[in-house]
Amino acid sequence: MKLHWSPKSPFVRKVMIAAHELDLLHSIEPVRSVAAMREPNPAIMVDNPLSKIPTLVLPDGRALFDSVVICEYLNDLVEGPLFPKAGEGRWQALRWHALGNGLLDMLILWRNERERQAPLVQLADAFELKTRATLQLLEREAATLTAAPFAIGHLTLVCALGYLDYRFDAFGWRRQAPSLSAWFSEMQQRPSVAATAPVDG
Amino acid sequence: MKLHWSPKSPFVRKVMIAAHELDLLHSIEPVRSVAAMREPNPAIMVDNPLSKIPTLVLPDGRALFDSVVICEYLNDLVEGPLFPKAGEGRWQALRWHALGNGLLDMLILWRNERERQAPLVQLADAFELKTRATLQLLEREAATLTAAPFAIGHLTLVCALGYLDYRFDAFGWRRQAPSLSAWFSEMQQRPSVAATAPVDG
Repeated sequence: MKLHWSPKSPFVRKVMIAAHELDLLHSIEPVRSVAAMREPNPAIMVDNPLSKIPTLVLPDGRALFDSVVICEYLNDLVEGPLFPKAGEGRWQALRWHALGNGLLDMLILWRNERERQAPLVQLADAFELKTRATLQLLEREAATLTAAPFAIGHLTLVCALGYLDYRFDAFGWRRQAPSLSAWFSEMQQRPSVAATAPVDG
Repeated sequence: MKLHWSPKSPFVRKVMIAAHELDLLHSIEPVRSVAAMREPNPAIMVDNPLSKIPTLVLPDGRALFDSVVICEYLNDLVEGPLFPKAGEGRWQALRWHALGNGLLDMLILWRNERERQAPLVQLADAFELKTRATLQLLEREAATLTAAPFAIGHLTLVCALGYLDYRFDAFGWRRQAPSLSAWFSEMQQRPSVAATAPVDG
């Protein structure tokens, strides 16, 4: 299966961690595809008109997106543990996924804003406030995260916190959330996480 | 259950259509909550640090988000038909959901861009190109949409196309996608869709 891929995208990283965890790396052929919000990429748009990565192209030519749909598809291929089937475990995992994914969506916008010629101060302040509040919530839930099995929520939070390290180093999120930071350091020992750290290029 | 709600939000509309379809309106108490990207709302942030709507507060005080998680939660409460359990039907529904939701995410950004003092022409052009490409894809799939049962993908595409009508009237999407427009007109006859059309106020 062809995967529109980049070594920098935190959303692509979700899929790569899932593929590692599910032992499906051999069935994925990553293709370097540049997706910038301002520059639609015709090579991606053949498969996904929204020009976003990751996009997975199945052997029959059909394309799947976005990242969580691809993760669930891979998980189902091998009946993996990344999407708890029902009950509390499922809502907890999907809620953490929504927190991590929502944080990532916002961080991408924050970074875009930062790079504009005339950034809106009010908007950057709003992004910062919401990021701090999200970290506070996760800090309170660090023990619950540690106790819960590794699933789509954990995986996505790892990508979001890794993106904070990668693009918002000066923001100093670890000082704001020490228990969460300890949890993240433990997660970084996981081979799937260590192998997919974002790199330039 | 308390729902952070607005009559204009296309993401809230997803939840309201789901509640209609699942006969769960009686168990939801909508609370008018204003969520603007630049203005974090403390009343929402108590329940969702990302300050986004919809956010659903369960009887025990825990909060669920984002819109697709809430829709799936409601669907599971009554074992509804909005999330096909497995196989082709599930991937097709989740893929359409991702298309509709991704289109909505982009349209919100496009609208925000349009209202800035110094909008970036390149960014607006990119949004327009991707919107046209998404409509072209859906136009090719209009017959498949018509044949498939009403599920989370249909529901979300209806919200996206309804948002185009509401905020991008001059864009004229119906002329670009006549078969899709016919499908949408049929969908608008559905009581859940008719009852949730966006209104100002």
